[in-house]
Amino acid sequence: MKKVALYILIVSFPLIANSQNNDSLKIRRIVNEILTNGTAYENLRQLCKTVGHRVSGSPAYQKAVKLTQAMMQSIKPDTVYLQPCMVPHWERGEKERGWVLTNNKRLFDLELLALGLSEGTGGRGVKAQVVEVTSFQQLHQLGPKGIKDKIVFFNFAMDPTYIRTFQAYGESGVARRNGASQAAKYGAKGVMVRSLASNVDPYPHTGAMRYSDSFPKIPAVAISTLSAERLSSELKKGKPVHAYFRTTSRNLPDVLEYNVIGEIRGSERPEEIITVGGHLDSWDVGEGAHDDGAGCMQSIEVIRSLRALGIKPKRTIRAVLFANEESGGKGADKYFDEAKAKNEKHIFAIESDAGGFTPRGISLDMTPEKEARFKRWHSLLAPYGIQDIYKGGSGADIADLKKIGAALAGFNPDSQRYFDVHHAATDVFEAVSRRELLLSAAVLAAVVWLVSEYGL
Amino acid sequence: MKKVALYILIVSFPLIANSQNNDSLKIRRIVNEILTNGTAYENLRQLCKTVGHRVSGSPAYQKAVKLTQAMMQSIKPDTVYLQPCMVPHWERGEKERGWVLTNNKRLFDLELLALGLSEGTGGRGVKAQVVEVTSFQQLHQLGPKGIKDKIVFFNFAMDPTYIRTFQAYGESGVARRNGASQAAKYGAKGVMVRSLASNVDPYPHTGAMRYSDSFPKIPAVAISTLSAERLSSELKKGKPVHAYFRTTSRNLPDVLEYNVIGEIRGSERPEEIITVGGHLDSWDVGEGAHDDGAGCMQSIEVIRSLRALGIKPKRTIRAVLFANEESGGKGADKYFDEAKAKNEKHIFAIESDAGGFTPRGISLDMTPEKEARFKRWHSLLAPYGIQDIYKGGSGADIADLKKIGAALAGFNPDSQRYFDVHHAATDVFEAVSRRELLLSAAVLAAVVWLVSEYGL
Repeated sequence: MKKVALYILIVSFPLIANSQNNDSLKIRRIVNEILTNGTAYENLRQLCKTVGHRVSGSPAYQKAVKLTQAMMQSIKPDTVYLQPCMVPHWERGEKERGWVLTNNKRLFDLELLALGLSEGTGGRGVKAQVVEVTSFQQLHQLGPKGIKDKIVFFNFAMDPTYIRTFQAYGESGVARRNGASQAAKYGAKGVMVRSLASNVDPYPHTGAMRYSDSFPKIPAVAISTLSAERLSSELKKGKPVHAYFRTTSRNLPDVLEYNVIGEIRGSERPEEIITVGGHLDSWDVGEGAHDDGAGCMQSIEVIRSLRALGIKPKRTIRAVLFANEESGGKGADKYFDEAKAKNEKHIFAIESDAGGFTPRGISLDMTPEKEARFKRWHSLLAPYGIQDIYKGGSGADIADLKKIGAALAGFNPDSQRYFDVHHAATDVFEAVSRRELLLSAAVLAAVVWLVSEYGL
Repeated sequence: MKKVALYILIVSFPLIANSQNNDSLKIRRIVNEILTNGTAYENLRQLCKTVGHRVSGSPAYQKAVKLTQAMMQSIKPDTVYLQPCMVPHWERGEKERGWVLTNNKRLFDLELLALGLSEGTGGRGVKAQVVEVTSFQQLHQLGPKGIKDKIVFFNFAMDPTYIRTFQAYGESGVARRNGASQAAKYGAKGVMVRSLASNVDPYPHTGAMRYSDSFPKIPAVAISTLSAERLSSELKKGKPVHAYFRTTSRNLPDVLEYNVIGEIRGSERPEEIITVGGHLDSWDVGEGAHDDGAGCMQSIEVIRSLRALGIKPKRTIRAVLFANEESGGKGADKYFDEAKAKNEKHIFAIESDAGGFTPRGISLDMTPEKEARFKRWHSLLAPYGIQDIYKGGSGADIADLKKIGAALAGFNPDSQRYFDVHHAATDVFEAVSRRELLLSAAVLAAVVWLVSEYGL
């Protein structure tokens, strides 16, 4: 049966049958191994169902370290080790409550989550008149007069016309990231941010915010897109609308955590290091399945498949599960600092942190020469769903490696479903497709193998 | 915001900015309309949740006709009409039961479904020793001596190494389609077929089988891949394994049903007809969400979006919801017969019957000249996820139109998840992503608009 598959592959993709034929056959072996015997999906089930969500600073994160360390050891790379780092510890506290009021009467309850790293309201909560803004410009125009003592409702809807949904996320995400301090500047008592979700549904999506030291640290929550639509409709009636919400989230002292690393030493150029990674922490809702259990399990799968096939990579390959991507990036900092201190030669890094979906594109952050070299591999990857290879970002955990010369890449699977689940209770194992997860792992393995074989 | 989106689009896909710039802008308008205001997802929810599954011959199918006729009318095409046809009526009967026995002791229950169009076992069921085969060659080698009075277990696993899962489906599907008659030839009492599913899970997948008139019509069931794996393991122990199953499915007299058609008359060449369609019937498990509620709702969306934008297509566009694709193709026959009898000029037809997933490819069944013309549009469609346009099949409901000169196309979204849900209880509305459904509808609308504007 495999011979038939190969035959069809060659007939369907004539480019492959040319000069890169040998590489194409080797990549086929890796892909077949992963699609047939891949363990990423069952590993992800275990991570999601025995650990679940694992926010930085939590006991669950420590459990995730033990579990994934054992997963790494079971596939027998040359070394498995932990890299310690201190990370921020934020706790959500009690379940949030909130509602909308008109004429001092409770009109409807809000579906809400405190934003990550935000301070709580205190036990009594915050109650104030609501002012809706759809841009920062509007906020600035309202100024202290319009904002003081109010709750600012940032209704920044994701633009549905972007095909790559991350563009909409980046654009509308400014409210989540900076809204609280911008509103505090004018004396707001709190902020409610429309969730960064593609659909109108009842799930609030959390995520990191940051305070500016120049302004008061006011409480900030995300409300579901459904709540946002209802609230906006109510405000359009022109009468005063109030809201109440109560959060008990808080920031605690830093905690010792670990990056989990598995490494195969290169057979010819062991000093040249390739990193493939994801982040092991998640937010504290759902199970962190797509974000980013998927990327972690895929990174382990890269190592597993090469081992299973007895492939000895010429360069050193590291699968790295980073700590604390969501709320500080301290795992990434540690990995970079150590690489720099040891004068390691990092030639390439790729991160999978956009969900465990079907393969679609790879973005490159490297010199034009290396970019051109990488793009020559497009025809080897296209049969597995890589439609585009283009200039773009890489990943939060690897970006710094550029400073010590690494060529970087971001793995970008299809993004249509990501913002249905991102940072929400819906990001659970059941939302992941086995074949999509494995096919993307196969593409990652192919890319890593190509770089290990040829450099850049 | 839309200006920014457009800017990014033009920068990202330089090809578009060339000669086809106007078309690119018009297609952008259609895509934006569908991603912003599309109703396909809410329509699908209604179809799935108020009608549910709608197998040929059932009252549910008649309800689906009324509902979709009303959906069509609400978007005000030039005409909406029904096309009557007689269709086979098969009923599943009581819930199937079955189990595996060793030493005359019940070992484990089977997850099973009668295959569509199969005859039942009768009230007593069938009990016999099980013989496993993984190829027809094996069956023929066993011959009457090995098969007579046995239950044949066709364990034809889908090959996981095919990237386009439909190739694995086509190959392994021979057991479901022809297994019963091939086994009956050698005197088997019944057949159990491994479900055509990508994963090992507990969901049996039904689907059409057909009897040969030359052999007895023995009962046939699909068992889940999990049941198949357990059964196969048991057989590997080398001792006799028996199975029992009971089905009460039956074939009844034909029933009058309808294709549902909505049409916009062409402004310049109304006699030239373009068909975009899916099939309205489903199997009698799940909700027929991906198969093929999705294709039907997308076809309506094509018409809706053009109407909403005030676009007057030069050629006539028909959205056709075909009756009886799953168990006879009588709706397709009727559409073809009428087209031929009326001497209609069908220039192009495209079917969406591979699930409501993210766009991936379009297969073409047309002359090389037309194929070359169509492929020139690739750069217009690539920004929305069309990675490949290639020679291939179209769709069961439109294939005959080739005989009267139509150029045909098949719409092929990403296929990784299809065989998780196909013909199973898991094919429900919740398995469909709103953005994936709409983005694929947008690509269909773009293709239909291009053909309506330029012909082929």
